[in-house]
Amino acid sequence: MANQTFNVAILGATGAVGEQMINTLDRLDFPINSLKLLSSKRSAGKKIKFRNEELTVEEAKPESFEGVQLALFSAGGSISKALAPEAVKRGAIVVDNTSAFRMDENVPLVVPEVNEHALKDHNGVIANPNCSTIQMVAALEPIRREFGMKKLVVSTYQAVSGAGADAIDEMYEQSRQIMNEEEINPQVLPASGDKKHYQIAFNAIPQIDVFTENGYTFEEMKMINETKKIMEDESLKVAATCVRLPVETGHSESVYIEVEKEGLNVEKIREILSEAPGVTLQDDPSQQIYPLAADAKGKDDIFVGRIRQDLDDKLGFHLWIVSDNLLKGAALNSVQIAFSLQKLGLLK
Amino acid sequence: MANQTFNVAILGATGAVGEQMINTLDRLDFPINSLKLLSSKRSAGKKIKFRNEELTVEEAKPESFEGVQLALFSAGGSISKALAPEAVKRGAIVVDNTSAFRMDENVPLVVPEVNEHALKDHNGVIANPNCSTIQMVAALEPIRREFGMKKLVVSTYQAVSGAGADAIDEMYEQSRQIMNEEEINPQVLPASGDKKHYQIAFNAIPQIDVFTENGYTFEEMKMINETKKIMEDESLKVAATCVRLPVETGHSESVYIEVEKEGLNVEKIREILSEAPGVTLQDDPSQQIYPLAADAKGKDDIFVGRIRQDLDDKLGFHLWIVSDNLLKGAALNSVQIAFSLQKLGLLK
Repeated sequence: MANQTFNVAILGATGAVGEQMINTLDRLDFPINSLKLLSSKRSAGKKIKFRNEELTVEEAKPESFEGVQLALFSAGGSISKALAPEAVKRGAIVVDNTSAFRMDENVPLVVPEVNEHALKDHNGVIANPNCSTIQMVAALEPIRREFGMKKLVVSTYQAVSGAGADAIDEMYEQSRQIMNEEEINPQVLPASGDKKHYQIAFNAIPQIDVFTENGYTFEEMKMINETKKIMEDESLKVAATCVRLPVETGHSESVYIEVEKEGLNVEKIREILSEAPGVTLQDDPSQQIYPLAADAKGKDDIFVGRIRQDLDDKLGFHLWIVSDNLLKGAALNSVQIAFSLQKLGLLK
Repeated sequence: MANQTFNVAILGATGAVGEQMINTLDRLDFPINSLKLLSSKRSAGKKIKFRNEELTVEEAKPESFEGVQLALFSAGGSISKALAPEAVKRGAIVVDNTSAFRMDENVPLVVPEVNEHALKDHNGVIANPNCSTIQMVAALEPIRREFGMKKLVVSTYQAVSGAGADAIDEMYEQSRQIMNEEEINPQVLPASGDKKHYQIAFNAIPQIDVFTENGYTFEEMKMINETKKIMEDESLKVAATCVRLPVETGHSESVYIEVEKEGLNVEKIREILSEAPGVTLQDDPSQQIYPLAADAKGKDDIFVGRIRQDLDDKLGFHLWIVSDNLLKGAALNSVQIAFSLQKLGLLK
């Protein structure tokens, strides 16, 4: 098995996350026999270099998945819903980076550092969680394992790249226009499919994705529901307020937690996190060391700092958690799921 | 008394807040007999127009306060400490916008909508709270009065103008440099007096003011201590994480509260806040209506939206609170304190 290589497909290969998936498979040396790049009809025909080959992007069709063992999907929820069953029917395992299947009880929702074991129950599809959820649960799980967790309140500071390349362009274009005292014409953010669009440059927009009936946004509901599912604790109280910032890449999160067991303190959290897989501690107030979104861009790790015990509640703690939303928040986590599948002998 | 006019001095008249104080006194028609503009030696001699007069800024000295009835201070904590006693000795009431006297138990710390009554106990100096505290307590107090409050957790999204004109310049200059792919050279933010400086453009910095011994920043400790003092409740649990954003003016806050009494819901909060002085409700998710920092700039009110009941805790609620940090967060609140002093007959 150690020498086994796999036929891999990437659906959504020309998008921001797809591009990172290709890079990450290469960079982490995933054992690939063949790589198939798939996209919508519009992007088909593009050439993308992978290792020493130039690959041509093909239009995704049900037949595209013949012979594919592992398919990484990142082309939007409706495409996942249409094509994932087709890929599974043809014998592929699908790692889906959209929200299409995340809350499906037959689909494992996996951050390998947290719940790799859930992969064993898969029925062909494995869901990759939302970017803002992944970095949070991976940083908090090592604390939760030792001290339990009753409550979690997060306020996010999310980068525009989570809304795609158009959102990045809009942020820079608006920044230029505002500094040149020109009129701006928002058309993408906060949510490209929504009715109204607002200035993102030099602003903070408390809306990511569209609103649900209960007044929370879909992004907030994803963080709430996915966290409980990944941590396998429906009694955990989770609340989220999700905010878009004029930052290109790198989500930051201000997180408040209440643990169950007494005895936790800042030094103990630092000790736990310094040994946590995928986590880098950046926490030295005396030297102004703390995570910054601009520094996290392009890096694999989840950075944690500003760790403080609540001054009024000894079971309460505050943390600042930052990670590249396109890497650990998306492409890297998908590729790590692929490695876990391989390690567990689930990739056939 | 209705026709009485007052001799007013502004210390720090050439700064960003001083400028807004002058504008606000004029705009709200404060009954002024004479206005004296004071500054450091460096800025003395500047000419500033007020109503129909051109006033010359004078260097602030102890004697400057002879005959002054009301002095608005906004020139830094050490200057307040040196000159406030001199002004009080000469019969002036000082409204101080620095942190010099805020936690002094002999000094009322006042947001007129919340604790105007505390003015009666003044000993010559009245402290204006920190910008991020003012907007939060003014928005929460009407809820607290009816339903009590046990706990408050805030994560801030603060504008650079809170760090002065140099910070604004730095943000725009860095934005240009980054878009032109030039090197940046941070020298002001996060705190001009601190050792290290970081990129603010297209970033989020979880440090405002310098760090205290306990790992919290001074800004966070201000929010925690001032909130308890203004709300006159030492048992209220308050936690803050303060973050600087690339926004020129307008602080946003993601606030989680736990109230004491059952029966509160989103509609009731909207009802309470729609009648709250100085508060404007902007809360209609179906129409994507919520407060935005860029819209709040230049406006007197505190804007509140994204009001949600916690999904796991019926006593928990989330709000998004936005206001102009130079107006309600500083100059406007100082002028409102002056009006309250006049109304209560304390200005002599």
